[in-house]
Amino acid sequence: MSPESTPVAIIGAGPAGLLLSWALRDAGIHTIVIENRSQDYVLARIRAGVLEQGSVEYLTRLGLGDRLKAEGMEHDGIYLQYGGERHRVNFNDLIGRTVTVYGQQQVVKDLVAAHQGAGSTVYYEAADVAVHDLDSATPSVTFVHEGEKHTIAADFVVGADGFHGICRSSIPTEKITLFDRSYPFAWLGILADVAPSTEELIYALHEDGFAMHSMRSHTVSRLYLQVDPADDITNWSDERIWQALQTRLAVPGWTLTEGVITDKSITPMRSFVASTLSYGHLFLVGDAGHIVPPTGAKGLNSAISDVTQLAEALTAHYRNDDSLLGRYSDTALARQWRVQQFSRWMTDMLHRSPGDLQSDAFDYRSQVGQLDYVTHSPLAQRMLAEQYTGLLL
Amino acid sequence: MSPESTPVAIIGAGPAGLLLSWALRDAGIHTIVIENRSQDYVLARIRAGVLEQGSVEYLTRLGLGDRLKAEGMEHDGIYLQYGGERHRVNFNDLIGRTVTVYGQQQVVKDLVAAHQGAGSTVYYEAADVAVHDLDSATPSVTFVHEGEKHTIAADFVVGADGFHGICRSSIPTEKITLFDRSYPFAWLGILADVAPSTEELIYALHEDGFAMHSMRSHTVSRLYLQVDPADDITNWSDERIWQALQTRLAVPGWTLTEGVITDKSITPMRSFVASTLSYGHLFLVGDAGHIVPPTGAKGLNSAISDVTQLAEALTAHYRNDDSLLGRYSDTALARQWRVQQFSRWMTDMLHRSPGDLQSDAFDYRSQVGQLDYVTHSPLAQRMLAEQYTGLLL
Repeated sequence: MSPESTPVAIIGAGPAGLLLSWALRDAGIHTIVIENRSQDYVLARIRAGVLEQGSVEYLTRLGLGDRLKAEGMEHDGIYLQYGGERHRVNFNDLIGRTVTVYGQQQVVKDLVAAHQGAGSTVYYEAADVAVHDLDSATPSVTFVHEGEKHTIAADFVVGADGFHGICRSSIPTEKITLFDRSYPFAWLGILADVAPSTEELIYALHEDGFAMHSMRSHTVSRLYLQVDPADDITNWSDERIWQALQTRLAVPGWTLTEGVITDKSITPMRSFVASTLSYGHLFLVGDAGHIVPPTGAKGLNSAISDVTQLAEALTAHYRNDDSLLGRYSDTALARQWRVQQFSRWMTDMLHRSPGDLQSDAFDYRSQVGQLDYVTHSPLAQRMLAEQYTGLLL
Repeated sequence: MSPESTPVAIIGAGPAGLLLSWALRDAGIHTIVIENRSQDYVLARIRAGVLEQGSVEYLTRLGLGDRLKAEGMEHDGIYLQYGGERHRVNFNDLIGRTVTVYGQQQVVKDLVAAHQGAGSTVYYEAADVAVHDLDSATPSVTFVHEGEKHTIAADFVVGADGFHGICRSSIPTEKITLFDRSYPFAWLGILADVAPSTEELIYALHEDGFAMHSMRSHTVSRLYLQVDPADDITNWSDERIWQALQTRLAVPGWTLTEGVITDKSITPMRSFVASTLSYGHLFLVGDAGHIVPPTGAKGLNSAISDVTQLAEALTAHYRNDDSLLGRYSDTALARQWRVQQFSRWMTDMLHRSPGDLQSDAFDYRSQVGQLDYVTHSPLAQRMLAEQYTGLLL
């Protein structure tokens, strides 16, 4: 047993936890990060790939912008495709803001490197992680690391431990409301060693279902297909995947170049919000507090937004101003509900609803009507641009 | 048997049919209108009550604006209510456009009076109405009127005979696609002899369901409650109705004044589009071709929009230009799908979805998030204003 103490103990070394630790370090506040997975696992995890302009600015301000600037691909807009036609929505022209394609993996890699350079305390492969006395002024975290039991006394504990983490479930049920919504479809995602066939992301509604062409770099493509959530990845041979992508992404005069698939998996979609994000001296950030369907690329950006707010609130606390910390949950959730609404709007607009056949046909035609409106109304385009590049609250 | 002929035979003397007849008369084109109901029935039918600015302008241009101008109530905007707070969206401030509250009944009354003054041919209480040879250049209409069989030879037949009319079903099934969508809720609507408690329409999302405060005049209120579509109006005593309205429309410092209920009924909601609106020499206008849920007040306005386009196309035809007539269905449907999408958006945003409890709670909170966005984002407000006051295509 080695007794340790820190102002802020952070559970989870994903992008949210590592970024909060880094931001607090920047403000002169020490943290200890506790992660139950290995560093290799954390570094290998494939997730989102689109950063809002505000996320890029925040990472850059914290000194994490070098590789992001060099390797990130700034996109002025996206393509929306339906009825076999592809329409560009140019965010930069519309509102002077952009997004940057830079894998979450890369953000984590930059954070891991930065923390290593700074000698931060990050315990990987921590077992039996538990949080205690969250509603007191003296919360603590216990875990086993390399066979040794640790107890960390902290002023605050932050749950950055994802949807399945232990922190949220440490809040007494009567103190928290969980909002949850599942969707009747999932995303089959692939990574392929091939240069992207598009310079910007393509979101496509096709009669067979949603398809998307994204990318991770100039040599790695990331593509998605709407599939049944009960479907199994073993039903999808590489050939079948490319065939479906060719069909759903087809437009005249454009070619989708195929390549070797290096990763494929099916991910269910859900909307989830924990209301509250704070309990006593515990605060939740990122997926521990909320999940969005991936269609609007808001997962990682929401985590960064939480971190921005919590880092500011904790910094203010150590300057004897507790007002921000008291409002953290309300402020973060106000933004989150707008993000939820946007993500669901994008999702509903672009996916086939596998309902009864009759409503289905209506819904599809109605979605086409909506896409038609969104791609032709300057107002609707601006609204999409504002929300996609990042709500400023 | 009395053989008659006319350039345009119009089935249905609702607002769409009577208005088309009037508009064509204005262009010097003779019509005959055939209606299976009595004139009293047509005049008594209670329907929509909000006219888009474009509808008002069109009616005025056709000389139907006198009473509309005197008795219609011009509204600068609407109220959106949720979470016990009422927010005004001022269309006039946002985009310089307004709507006018003037019951469909009043529009029909003006049209009936105008046609009577002009000596138009309108057959009410026509029995056994049938349309023939629609795909030929010599279509005809037969019916029995006051015991006498009539055959009317026409250049064109217009189906303005509503959702349950005979015209749409005269199109061979393989030539038409029907898009249909039902909703898991209905509107209980009342007319009450009491001055409206609000100067503009209130659309309210409440945990118990949607409620709306509309009006027909300075002394007649029109109010709505979301109910189960399987519910029966006999389950709703006047007292229960007012109680539910008081609960759902409540905001601090505001009083809903009750009055004698003179009419109450439950109407199911549906979205419906017939694709195509033209077949040979038959054209469909209004409810014969499409139905929207009433939330966006688009039903009557869509009918007027169809009439505007068809009157122009038929007028061009008789000036030897068939291009507009050939495009009528496509043009009207392009607008209609945007109207459908808007109506469904308003509907989904403001009604409780009686799904499983978990998704339900999420959806409600998400709707609040959306209303929060709509009432606070200038862009979203403009989008609502543009669509509510009437899409200009």
